[in-house]
Amino acid sequence: MTPATPRRRGRPSRTESADTPAARDRILAAAREEFSERGYDKASVRGIAKAAGVDSALVHHYFGTKEQVFEAAVTLSFGPAMQAPQAVEEGPLDGVGERLTRFVFGVWENPATRTPLLAIVRSAVNNEAAAAVFRRIIATQVLRRIADRLEVPDAELRAELAAAQLVGIAMLRYVIKVEPVASADPEQIIKRVAPVVQAHLTAPS
Amino acid sequence: MTPATPRRRGRPSRTESADTPAARDRILAAAREEFSERGYDKASVRGIAKAAGVDSALVHHYFGTKEQVFEAAVTLSFGPAMQAPQAVEEGPLDGVGERLTRFVFGVWENPATRTPLLAIVRSAVNNEAAAAVFRRIIATQVLRRIADRLEVPDAELRAELAAAQLVGIAMLRYVIKVEPVASADPEQIIKRVAPVVQAHLTAPS
Repeated sequence: MTPATPRRRGRPSRTESADTPAARDRILAAAREEFSERGYDKASVRGIAKAAGVDSALVHHYFGTKEQVFEAAVTLSFGPAMQAPQAVEEGPLDGVGERLTRFVFGVWENPATRTPLLAIVRSAVNNEAAAAVFRRIIATQVLRRIADRLEVPDAELRAELAAAQLVGIAMLRYVIKVEPVASADPEQIIKRVAPVVQAHLTAPS
Repeated sequence: MTPATPRRRGRPSRTESADTPAARDRILAAAREEFSERGYDKASVRGIAKAAGVDSALVHHYFGTKEQVFEAAVTLSFGPAMQAPQAVEEGPLDGVGERLTRFVFGVWENPATRTPLLAIVRSAVNNEAAAAVFRRIIATQVLRRIADRLEVPDAELRAELAAAQLVGIAMLRYVIKVEPVASADPEQIIKRVAPVVQAHLTAPS
């Protein structure tokens, strides 16, 4: 309660010490871990609470339902990928294909950002509630913002087809691991893929 | 046992009569069903045997390990998609992008072929052994054969980047179901995607 304490949520439930911003962060970290390791189906609010050393009620207090806890965990894990619209915005439109492609490779090539992304993809592929959360986040936080930057008709469809090229490469390279794409030099792939992403986003119809 | 009796279900378990092509087909159908419904992790040889009305030993006799049963089931489910190389081969190279894109859409748009494909994708995303089987099949049965038809350098990498575009669209449209791509008219998507697939496969480096 000193001025140095970060704001966030005020006072939670039952025991004083559980009811702090630190507890909230601990729950979120435990949720991310639980969903990563067990997938959406097998993860439980109870397991998350246990790992965070709090009561299940406190998890519900801060985040709501299991689906809402998942959304908070996805938002956290997906944080680095959510910078994609900045990569689009921060330069001229005619370099957007390369900037976006490099950005996406950067996120996937780094194990620290890849691991949580893989966990989200696995959950979304397997569970409809998880897919709905993922869908909402990528539609509103990523694709729509990229589309807003383009001054072309069908901007959202274009953003999605460009994203599809990048998602497909991620599937084949990092998830299924088919050769030669799994071991190819990223620069070789970027050279071929950046023009495709550029064409999807800006080429005349 | 009259000639009018449809083949398929012959006679049940262990006894002599189980060891027939009909029993093998029944096991394979049960395996496909079991892997579709439960995913690779939760499926078991025992469950497959039970659904087929045979002993587990007969499943092992015909197919080997769980992984090998999965491979046989994937090969069956993936049958329609394995015609892709024909779509590539059956016309001039300059129409290959459109032929391949139309072919892939045809497989995914038809619920009868989409459902088993989705089940394979889910298993492959979640389980490393299932991913290895899937990887081997798409590498040897699909991508390599498409690459053989192309007379360009880096043919395999090109085939994979083209496949990545189509895989990514399938993920966003049929698995994650992000709008607008999930509900877009297939012709609208084909019009934008066929040139990309063509460029990956045949454009000069």
